[in-house]
Amino acid sequence: MPQFNDTELTAAVIDSFEETPDPRAKFLLQELVKSLHEYVRKTDLTFEEWEYAIDFLTRTGQKCTPIRQEFILLSDVLGVSMLVDAVNHREREGATETTVLGPFYVGEHKQMPHGTDISANLPGERMFVQSRVTDLKGKPLAGVPVDVWHADDDGFYDSQKASYATQGPSSRARFVTDADGRFFFRTILPCSYPIPTDGPVGEMILQTRRHPMRPAHVHFLANARGYEPLITHVFIDGDKYLDSDVVFGVKNDLIAKIEKRTDAVMPDGKPATTPWHLMTYEFHMKPGQGTAPQPLGVKATEDA
Amino acid sequence: MPQFNDTELTAAVIDSFEETPDPRAKFLLQELVKSLHEYVRKTDLTFEEWEYAIDFLTRTGQKCTPIRQEFILLSDVLGVSMLVDAVNHREREGATETTVLGPFYVGEHKQMPHGTDISANLPGERMFVQSRVTDLKGKPLAGVPVDVWHADDDGFYDSQKASYATQGPSSRARFVTDADGRFFFRTILPCSYPIPTDGPVGEMILQTRRHPMRPAHVHFLANARGYEPLITHVFIDGDKYLDSDVVFGVKNDLIAKIEKRTDAVMPDGKPATTPWHLMTYEFHMKPGQGTAPQPLGVKATEDA
Repeated sequence: MPQFNDTELTAAVIDSFEETPDPRAKFLLQELVKSLHEYVRKTDLTFEEWEYAIDFLTRTGQKCTPIRQEFILLSDVLGVSMLVDAVNHREREGATETTVLGPFYVGEHKQMPHGTDISANLPGERMFVQSRVTDLKGKPLAGVPVDVWHADDDGFYDSQKASYATQGPSSRARFVTDADGRFFFRTILPCSYPIPTDGPVGEMILQTRRHPMRPAHVHFLANARGYEPLITHVFIDGDKYLDSDVVFGVKNDLIAKIEKRTDAVMPDGKPATTPWHLMTYEFHMKPGQGTAPQPLGVKATEDA
Repeated sequence: MPQFNDTELTAAVIDSFEETPDPRAKFLLQELVKSLHEYVRKTDLTFEEWEYAIDFLTRTGQKCTPIRQEFILLSDVLGVSMLVDAVNHREREGATETTVLGPFYVGEHKQMPHGTDISANLPGERMFVQSRVTDLKGKPLAGVPVDVWHADDDGFYDSQKASYATQGPSSRARFVTDADGRFFFRTILPCSYPIPTDGPVGEMILQTRRHPMRPAHVHFLANARGYEPLITHVFIDGDKYLDSDVVFGVKNDLIAKIEKRTDAVMPDGKPATTPWHLMTYEFHMKPGQGTAPQPLGVKATEDA
């Protein structure tokens, strides 16, 4: 019968995955075992700490719903999401920088006409966003669906609110680029906001004396056939949390200067009734393959 | 503004936990970040693989209920539970060997009189279990509560069955040692059984071509004031899965020879109507502190 001391045990567990048919899955699992076991040995993890971890992971899973993904949030605040992003985007070749998907993507958005005000009349300073999608040589890419989403003036995404089920999306839409690669829309200026602190991940952030804030930004997800899906944010220049984003998502090239405007008309020729902001940002896509991410909440088909 | 390449990112995440008030929590979190990041870098984890992991962990959390703990099962099949056991029990000094708690402990059991048949008349070969609890010098320990639980003849624990809510426990009880440190009870001979394969962990075991079986055993959890809680199994000698337990829990000293008996009376003087088995095993407890584990299902007070 096997009698394991702690290193023999590790070897036995690694060996148990030897018949895994898929070589990549086998590699990932065997490395996972090595990594987990090294962690336990290095930290001399106590039984109580192990219990805490089991309970923390369980609560994290149970906090997930079709519109909330607490495990992505955990990955985000531990810098894992940005690291996965980094190791998969080592060579940008002039393409727009990428950043985290975040936990508030809820799947393909509803397409809206250019110029739509997506803010659902929520309070906030008005903003006009104009953008263009091109390849690496500046050639416009037409017909590209671009999903956009951002937090409202009170710091919440639509999907975090009880009203989401009945009133539907706000500050969330899809635009499809025109023949010149352009798309534009109206919304409100997003503000910096805390990640949700009513779950295990937010609890950990507060208990470890980290602040839970993300600098203001708008999410963009562009998905063009023949190009790598582009998952990124545009950050609002001047935000006080740009250098301490709780999910480590800021890159200099993704910070946009927002112009304050008082013109009576907006760039699409329609009237402006109040002072407004103008965000201008171009996206440059890299040739490649890939499918856009699916939302990662609990699937409706799960029996949970 | 910070611009992270992949190694600078890791340093920034480690630094973000610098103000953690509890030094042990700080150490555990910073080592966790190092370990997770090393794993992502070493494996060049793809976005799709990260998505798979997020979804797997979410499904694992969602599979947990007050009487099912899928994360403990994950820890068990990855050998993590046995490793935590190993690093916390390096010096046994003659104390009984420990092994995994497993996912089917449901908290303090109902105390029953010595000799009780705990099998609730389920089919199976009859077994009489006689045991004694002592300190390391063989001095009997009186008044020690010992929780026992085991799978039935069909390979399931009571808590896995729909009938559990209405009919209550079977093959699960608590006995309190008498003045001589003894306790004894009647039950059925447990058999080897598969871990649950209807959840993400069982799926992984089948997809990686591991078998899901555990060799037959009875769980014991003894908790005496002034002694380390003793969490262990006694395995049935001769089981075909003793050398390939899916959770790596077997230790030679925990394997008991079960005697086949045809005596007309059992050790407590009461009649035996069929041939029966006799399990005899003594537990030796090590002085120390510690509280017995709580059941780790989803707490009833959770909002999930």
